[in-house]
Amino acid sequence: MTDHSSRPRPFLSDNAAPVHPRVWEAMRNADLADSPYDGDALSAQLDERFSDLFGRECAGLWVATGTAANCLALATMVQPHGGVVCHEEAHIEVDEGGAPGFFLHGAKLVLCGDAHGGEGGKLTPEQVAARIDPIRDDVHQVQPHAIAITQASEYGRVYRPGELERLADFAKVRGLGLHMDGARFANAAAFLGGSATQAAGAAARGVDSLAFGCIKNGAMSAEAIVLFDPEQADLVKYRRKRAGHLQCKGRYLAAQVLAMLDADLWLENARHANVAAQEIASGCGERLMHPVEANELFVTMSANEREALRAQDFAFYDWGADAARFVTAWDTRENDARALGKAIAAL
Amino acid sequence: MTDHSSRPRPFLSDNAAPVHPRVWEAMRNADLADSPYDGDALSAQLDERFSDLFGRECAGLWVATGTAANCLALATMVQPHGGVVCHEEAHIEVDEGGAPGFFLHGAKLVLCGDAHGGEGGKLTPEQVAARIDPIRDDVHQVQPHAIAITQASEYGRVYRPGELERLADFAKVRGLGLHMDGARFANAAAFLGGSATQAAGAAARGVDSLAFGCIKNGAMSAEAIVLFDPEQADLVKYRRKRAGHLQCKGRYLAAQVLAMLDADLWLENARHANVAAQEIASGCGERLMHPVEANELFVTMSANEREALRAQDFAFYDWGADAARFVTAWDTRENDARALGKAIAAL
Amino acid sequence: MTDHSSRPRPFLSDNAAPVHPRVWEAMRNADLADSPYDGDALSAQLDERFSDLFGRECAGLWVATGTAANCLALATMVQPHGGVVCHEEAHIEVDEGGAPGFFLHGAKLVLCGDAHGGEGGKLTPEQVAARIDPIRDDVHQVQPHAIAITQASEYGRVYRPGELERLADFAKVRGLGLHMDGARFANAAAFLGGSATQAAGAAARGVDSLAFGCIKNGAMSAEAIVLFDPEQADLVKYRRKRAGHLQCKGRYLAAQVLAMLDADLWLENARHANVAAQEIASGCGERLMHPVEANELFVTMSANEREALRAQDFAFYDWGADAARFVTAWDTRENDARALGKAIAAL
Amino acid sequence: MTDHSSRPRPFLSDNAAPVHPRVWEAMRNADLADSPYDGDALSAQLDERFSDLFGRECAGLWVATGTAANCLALATMVQPHGGVVCHEEAHIEVDEGGAPGFFLHGAKLVLCGDAHGGEGGKLTPEQVAARIDPIRDDVHQVQPHAIAITQASEYGRVYRPGELERLADFAKVRGLGLHMDGARFANAAAFLGGSATQAAGAAARGVDSLAFGCIKNGAMSAEAIVLFDPEQADLVKYRRKRAGHLQCKGRYLAAQVLAMLDADLWLENARHANVAAQEIASGCGERLMHPVEANELFVTMSANEREALRAQDFAFYDWGADAARFVTAWDTRENDARALGKAIAAL
Repeated sequence: MTDHSSRPRPFLSDNAAPVHPRVWEAMRNADLADSPYDGDALSAQLDERFSDLFGRECAGLWVATGTAANCLALATMVQPHGGVVCHEEAHIEVDEGGAPGFFLHGAKLVLCGDAHGGEGGKLTPEQVAARIDPIRDDVHQVQPHAIAITQASEYGRVYRPGELERLADFAKVRGLGLHMDGARFANAAAFLGGSATQAAGAAARGVDSLAFGCIKNGAMSAEAIVLFDPEQADLVKYRRKRAGHLQCKGRYLAAQVLAMLDADLWLENARHANVAAQEIASGCGERLMHPVEANELFVTMSANEREALRAQDFAFYDWGADAARFVTAWDTRENDARALGKAIAAL
Repeated sequence: MTDHSSRPRPFLSDNAAPVHPRVWEAMRNADLADSPYDGDALSAQLDERFSDLFGRECAGLWVATGTAANCLALATMVQPHGGVVCHEEAHIEVDEGGAPGFFLHGAKLVLCGDAHGGEGGKLTPEQVAARIDPIRDDVHQVQPHAIAITQASEYGRVYRPGELERLADFAKVRGLGLHMDGARFANAAAFLGGSATQAAGAAARGVDSLAFGCIKNGAMSAEAIVLFDPEQADLVKYRRKRAGHLQCKGRYLAAQVLAMLDADLWLENARHANVAAQEIASGCGERLMHPVEANELFVTMSANEREALRAQDFAFYDWGADAARFVTAWDTRENDARALGKAIAAL
Repeated sequence: MTDHSSRPRPFLSDNAAPVHPRVWEAMRNADLADSPYDGDALSAQLDERFSDLFGRECAGLWVATGTAANCLALATMVQPHGGVVCHEEAHIEVDEGGAPGFFLHGAKLVLCGDAHGGEGGKLTPEQVAARIDPIRDDVHQVQPHAIAITQASEYGRVYRPGELERLADFAKVRGLGLHMDGARFANAAAFLGGSATQAAGAAARGVDSLAFGCIKNGAMSAEAIVLFDPEQADLVKYRRKRAGHLQCKGRYLAAQVLAMLDADLWLENARHANVAAQEIASGCGERLMHPVEANELFVTMSANEREALRAQDFAFYDWGADAARFVTAWDTRENDARALGKAIAAL
Repeated sequence: MTDHSSRPRPFLSDNAAPVHPRVWEAMRNADLADSPYDGDALSAQLDERFSDLFGRECAGLWVATGTAANCLALATMVQPHGGVVCHEEAHIEVDEGGAPGFFLHGAKLVLCGDAHGGEGGKLTPEQVAARIDPIRDDVHQVQPHAIAITQASEYGRVYRPGELERLADFAKVRGLGLHMDGARFANAAAFLGGSATQAAGAAARGVDSLAFGCIKNGAMSAEAIVLFDPEQADLVKYRRKRAGHLQCKGRYLAAQVLAMLDADLWLENARHANVAAQEIASGCGERLMHPVEANELFVTMSANEREALRAQDFAFYDWGADAARFVTAWDTRENDARALGKAIAAL
């Protein structure tokens, strides 16, 4: 018998998982006030901690949501009259309520689909070039100022170091910034063997900025913006304040981020979720719409089949009319994942 | 001997105070996921709880900062080509890093000084009229769409119910919205005998929206936006998402707000701070620049005198060249407040 | 022999045609100053003149470009957090340099393609519904506030009165505004027999606003914004000023618009251009990619064939790799149009 | 007897004056189309013509209003989170309907008054420093990115070359851009002996951008943006398009600007207006509130006195309760100016 009792076995999303005990502990330890905003001793550690993690100088700033993290980072690269090239299913396009248009003052998202290369929500230089070359230097068309990619992608796919290098080289040649939405960066890094640098690209051939996700991975309300050009930190600080995102008790956000970095909790949690995803994947066979590289599964499944799973207390989202999406998290119970894999195999 | 040991006796600001134990407890109890964003059972209680508190139907929404609360509320009243009348020392003008210009898309703050009435950062209808009548219906000048006031004001002054009614009547006649920045609303309400309604104005003759402050009063990262026209809640929800302020684990913010409302913790904490402020005031005599009605004191004091207080481990901000500002909080120790009052009296 | 001498026979665009003599005359007659901005006697006539033209009360305002006309009109319907549904090849999406994002403060263009109905750049209610129903009331997705259509469309197609009524009814039911980009409204009206009302939809079942194009049709620098809810005029006036579009010598723009309306010059010019387009169309046969209803022709044509035409001094744009676009104007010489038709037939 | 007959003798503003005959002629000569937008042969001359005028390389772009010219130029210097230091009576603050907030996406105007130096609407480095030093590097306060000055000032005062050098040096040291609103630049240059360079500051010690006013000086609808860093032209071109200010028949605007430059029409017209202003000034004596250096006069005058002048058919604006403003233009009749001077002297 599985150990679930009354509550459903949750595979809806990692974004509603509880806060990890070590994060709670770190927050409680931040209770004693020293300085408001980001003037506290914890916030002051972020630059160094992320520089250590990535092996090159960078700036680290907390912010409460991934949406804000992505948009504030993009603001270092994109002027209001410019554009951001992204996949047509990128989170910033389909799931952030128009936030890029707000933070970037009307800048436009210039969309690439899977048509010209790339797969599973990933972009390639060829695909980007095919989209932007025809509008080059045309004053009647919004010109791109940056490229935004997602690691792991919206379909749970992971950019390999070589792919990142090619994108970074392309961006440099074209004078574009390169931003990475890392809401599930930890899962990607875990898939790549645990190297933060490999997941973001090495110095000079990596991304310019990263939204380092913590919330889906065990934090409560803190993501980190990592800027590989630390001189941009100042701009982000002014923009963060201006967006109402400079919390006066910022030390509680810094504490969350630091707790994630301490003893590699970020990797430990992500590995757990990835393993659980593989458990489920092992039961999916040909149903898998995308290789499972992180903690999301997109699985072909009829309405009847989905109903059958839900009758067994599995909670998840439909993905269109003929598929389902399952997401694992740091707190996914092994039993639940195994049971789900078996239940799918038995459909 | 006073009981302070190593750390300074803090009167810098209430915005860095620790989180109240009952808030911590409520947050921990929110750990069990139900739904992400604001779909959870705690967030769902806010409308009713605030409707009970104010005795009329209203909507309540959490957001992480007072800056965001003010700006999102103002967005219900002010179009991008409009303006917000406020005092020239209003927080939204001098301390929010241009956030109103961002959230309101370039709308202008139309400033009133103390010259034409009002005092201690408060506005009167006469003062507002003197400022806006000369530009009325002039297409070359930004027209006001709303008035924003602060309760308690930036100088710790409290609007009386009658003053609010006059302002509300004036705003209605002029077709202007009326917003209240209530970062220290609790302290104002405590001063007025504990009535939320008296502090915000009664139905039909009160404010249209309120940023109900919790953070300075014992919460960690949650303020409430209270909309007395609940139909505006929809607009604020879309704008909150778009501003990166819709946290996916919103239940932790709802928990904070609810903890403040439970058993009137918001009033209990504010009363504590107000009492401490009176303790200090009792030692200030003629030095007081403004009557002490909430938890802030502005005290005439030479540089030497300030140095003398700091030598006794009191921490506070200078206020210009010839004064000091002291702020009490929910956690101010009575001994510290009493000691400060005596120390000032002894200068 | 054709009558062209040194200069090419121009079919590039109607947007570079010279100013019509009657427009020049009207401008010169406006030289005598009375009042600056839009306080002059000519600007004052626009409301009445357009109300007469459309047979219902409306407001008319001049502005210097179609881009500004479209965006200012849309600003009456679309809040910054909203969206505008339009065809994926609409001028506001592909040819205005991001102006809607600027004027609407980051509002999003929500794109429909030809896939679900409509043709030649036209939209149908079914197509719009298919695009927006899946995102309805989802706070993570930008919600539409308006629909924008183009009359004649970007492919020279004309909405029939019945089509407009269905769109207007749909918009009303969904609570959406309905705006018409009428850069070539005159050509559409001419096609529909000369009725402005039929081209914009009758009262209560027509569009809410119209960018009434004059510049492509013989004016120099004036388009008209027609608002069928005259109460919106005030908002547009403030926005026009704020966008730097309130010219201090506005009488010269009013004069242009009035000259277009006088003795139906707008229709006379458009008819001329439409007739010329039919002359060309008569030589195109199967090559026509779209029925020719206004003054634009999209014609299948190889690179060699285009070269052959250019060798005969015809100037026009390529349309992708395998087609050409020809545009006629108020000043197109009949001989040139006839010669072009024959030349295409002879390819 | 004076020669005025029915119409009033106009001293309201130079902004409603008729178009100069040489400007009309140039526009008519531009009728023959070559290329749309700014691809025509006339627009192509602007860079060179302004480089010749200022003796250093610069870019020149037409735009339809001074408001747009100022705002587009400022956009090269000011990011959305920044500010523009200007005089509290600067045109961009009091007379442009919030346009800077729109074009600069919520950037803030940081106001200086006459209190700390400067006079008649002019700014000094000391005054700017006194305003911005107290907020330096404070993330809670909008930081300035540029200084904007007006030449001639809103009170008709002219910056001398040495004053401009000091401001330019100060701006450079502080890392601020320096923009000049030159709505009446020609009048200032005429006052300074006719040197454009002296009126804008010499290379390396002059302004970074200039709104070169033509409309108040005899043009119809064209101002020029002059960028002393020509690399910024690209940004302005994209922003101009995005603001709906890229007119498709731009050659008519280029023609106006070129007509103003040909044979120094800009100076000839400004000299005429300045001479007329001196005629009036000669009758004002102690009534003058500011020295008359350009074409505006601010004259102390009671309501009765103003009524007396109006009874003599002089048209002008009140300036507050106790003064009047008179403005001369390129078409002011000498007789009218002389008559006005005498009439004032006779009050």
